[in-house]
Amino acid sequence: MRNYTTQMDAARKGIITPEMKTVAAKEYRTEEEIRDLVAKGQVAICANKLHTCIDPNGVGSMLRTKINVNLGVSRDCKDYNIEMEKVMAAVNMGAEAIMDLSSHGNTQPFRRKLTSECPAMIGTVPVYDSVIHYQRDLATLTAKDFIDVVRLHAEDGVDFVTLHCGITRKTIEQIRKHKRKMNIVSRGGSLVFAWMCMTGEENPFYEYYDEILDICREYDVTISLGDACRPGCLADGSDVCQIEELVRLGELTKRAWEKDVQVMVEGPGHMPMDQIEANMKMQQTICMGAPFYVLGPIVTDIAPGYDHITSAIGGAIAAASGAAFLCYVTPAEHLALPNVDDVKQGIIASKIAAHAADIAKKIPHARDIDDRMGDARRNLDWDAQWECALDPETAKRIRDERKPEHEDTCSMCGKFCAVRSMNKALNGEYIDIL
Amino acid sequence: MRNYTTQMDAARKGIITPEMKTVAAKEYRTEEEIRDLVAKGQVAICANKLHTCIDPNGVGSMLRTKINVNLGVSRDCKDYNIEMEKVMAAVNMGAEAIMDLSSHGNTQPFRRKLTSECPAMIGTVPVYDSVIHYQRDLATLTAKDFIDVVRLHAEDGVDFVTLHCGITRKTIEQIRKHKRKMNIVSRGGSLVFAWMCMTGEENPFYEYYDEILDICREYDVTISLGDACRPGCLADGSDVCQIEELVRLGELTKRAWEKDVQVMVEGPGHMPMDQIEANMKMQQTICMGAPFYVLGPIVTDIAPGYDHITSAIGGAIAAASGAAFLCYVTPAEHLALPNVDDVKQGIIASKIAAHAADIAKKIPHARDIDDRMGDARRNLDWDAQWECALDPETAKRIRDERKPEHEDTCSMCGKFCAVRSMNKALNGEYIDIL
Repeated sequence: MRNYTTQMDAARKGIITPEMKTVAAKEYRTEEEIRDLVAKGQVAICANKLHTCIDPNGVGSMLRTKINVNLGVSRDCKDYNIEMEKVMAAVNMGAEAIMDLSSHGNTQPFRRKLTSECPAMIGTVPVYDSVIHYQRDLATLTAKDFIDVVRLHAEDGVDFVTLHCGITRKTIEQIRKHKRKMNIVSRGGSLVFAWMCMTGEENPFYEYYDEILDICREYDVTISLGDACRPGCLADGSDVCQIEELVRLGELTKRAWEKDVQVMVEGPGHMPMDQIEANMKMQQTICMGAPFYVLGPIVTDIAPGYDHITSAIGGAIAAASGAAFLCYVTPAEHLALPNVDDVKQGIIASKIAAHAADIAKKIPHARDIDDRMGDARRNLDWDAQWECALDPETAKRIRDERKPEHEDTCSMCGKFCAVRSMNKALNGEYIDIL
Repeated sequence: MRNYTTQMDAARKGIITPEMKTVAAKEYRTEEEIRDLVAKGQVAICANKLHTCIDPNGVGSMLRTKINVNLGVSRDCKDYNIEMEKVMAAVNMGAEAIMDLSSHGNTQPFRRKLTSECPAMIGTVPVYDSVIHYQRDLATLTAKDFIDVVRLHAEDGVDFVTLHCGITRKTIEQIRKHKRKMNIVSRGGSLVFAWMCMTGEENPFYEYYDEILDICREYDVTISLGDACRPGCLADGSDVCQIEELVRLGELTKRAWEKDVQVMVEGPGHMPMDQIEANMKMQQTICMGAPFYVLGPIVTDIAPGYDHITSAIGGAIAAASGAAFLCYVTPAEHLALPNVDDVKQGIIASKIAAHAADIAKKIPHARDIDDRMGDARRNLDWDAQWECALDPETAKRIRDERKPEHEDTCSMCGKFCAVRSMNKALNGEYIDIL
């Protein structure tokens, strides 16, 4: 039997867990460094005790930036096996976390399948599942019903749960008073808000936070403190609703840490580029270095169909400025349920943002693969280029579709290829262009 | 007859030209403000006297960020009319400049077609065209041959020419000595370098710079000072080769301004995110506020097939930090000649970067359309959303392909739609989710 409850509890007792060892090896850090960061809450190792097939990862601003992919069974895709194939494809493309946002039918079997077969961190949003699980109208659910679903997810082996604990009845008046352009765009946040409006009661995830902490401590479920008031358009960025909730999330972070429960804090959202760095720095101070998990930030509102790009811009800046964890955004965001290709585009855009930020943050060895790509390009060694490429199939397909006349170049420049000219010039060779 | 040579000459004489008036109206500035910025060289209005169908635009860090699209007749696409259709499509998608990089056959008719029919700024790279124009081996061309092509382009009505004036014979030794990973990746820069290596002569664009200035002054051709040593991989970012050339470009900027010739300065390239802002600030001081025209910056080397995204990240940061003009990068970059869809993807990614930066820079009215999108989203008014969208067809197609069950929402969230829940909650209505 292990002589600790959570990773944080172990770290504080000076125990280096197997999960910490794995994280240390992956991140080129000493085990002691990781233990210390987990003890301080600056790294979360989201690993439910019952998720035994997990390949653990650490989430923290000083570690490699992680990405999350949202999937789940829906009315349109009810087949567990097909959805599981998407999950494993996402993991193979580099997703460190899968959030199961299943919204149809009996959600438990798929959730259990995830925690018994998938090596990525598994996250859920219990408030979504409450309506589905009980198959009852939102207004008829009780505070106890919600807490029971949190327990159910913990028992099913979920590694982290998004809980919108940061809004209260006061928020109702605040949202009315401040006349935000987009009010609340967090799906879970809007459900909690709607439930409070209909029942007249306090937010159960806030009111019964201590009970939730006890559950999370027992299974080592990391709480991802949801940001109900994340801005839903540029105009609402960094407004008082958002920042007041952040302050409350800081208080809740402290309360979780007092019970050795690991925490991540969720963040914006839609936001002008020039506000991103300030938001990251503010979260780091207010939440005492707890890992920041951001959705976006989406840096312009006018690009539906391309929000994987708007959020790659924002996500890269966020991660370079302190965010630890990026939620992918697909081209279908704001428009439709993403299809298989949207999922792929979203993952690649997020990986680009995360990797670019890791290089900027000087994460150990992050740039090694870029340097190998540089060598491969100088040598016009196309096979070596494919080995370094994030998506070699796509890159190879583009080149092969438009075959170059000269095997060593590509059809973009042909014999005007700068690399070819330079290699010849530096070798003292004659350069033919025509 | 007009009583001035270039826009800069006019501005310095206190004359407000029709082009300055147009720019002032587009940019929500006074005519006097624009005149003053043109006089100081901080705004370039690239408008050859002979390009009479131009719809003039100003390029400057305090104005809306402009984007350039590279097109041109090639071995694969020899039909002038088809290429012209691509040009007009690019202009309709929002490109303010078209660079004609034609690399096949008789290039003059297409160039003249551009300056007689296209309202965008037209740019060229005379050194590419020299080889094509004379149909002779690079090594056999003389300095006079190159200068004659610059004159030909000026006479054909070209608004700006990229000239790699900033490298000299000293650069040959420097490139050897510093052992850059990617040497020179600028196509034009590599041709100049190769020519210098093969002939033993000095760079003609540097040696005969005064003659070039006289040509540019006569027709009001803006010189876009090419950056032969722009880094071709992250490892070469901000190295001494790049920065020494930048210093020389600053000197050349001053010499051009002494003859009232307008200047833009070209910049990186491949570069880690954390170096971008410093590069933009450095260019602004060294080149005394001359507009900075950047290719990328591409923030990771490992994403061939997705370099429209890597450069949207870098371009957005660059523009927000002072770059004035972004050269589009397509998904085919490093791999192949872009096809029609690649061109579209490249334009949209660049527009996103430019617009996000304009919002961050607080360019007057830049955010208005985002605010309208926010209103449309809150109202679940899909037609109004399409009106604000950068690419309404794509956005509409994604939503329509996966028709929502409920007309007011979309298939992503269905009745879990946060906007729908919030609108009902704030109206005191009952919220049904199931």
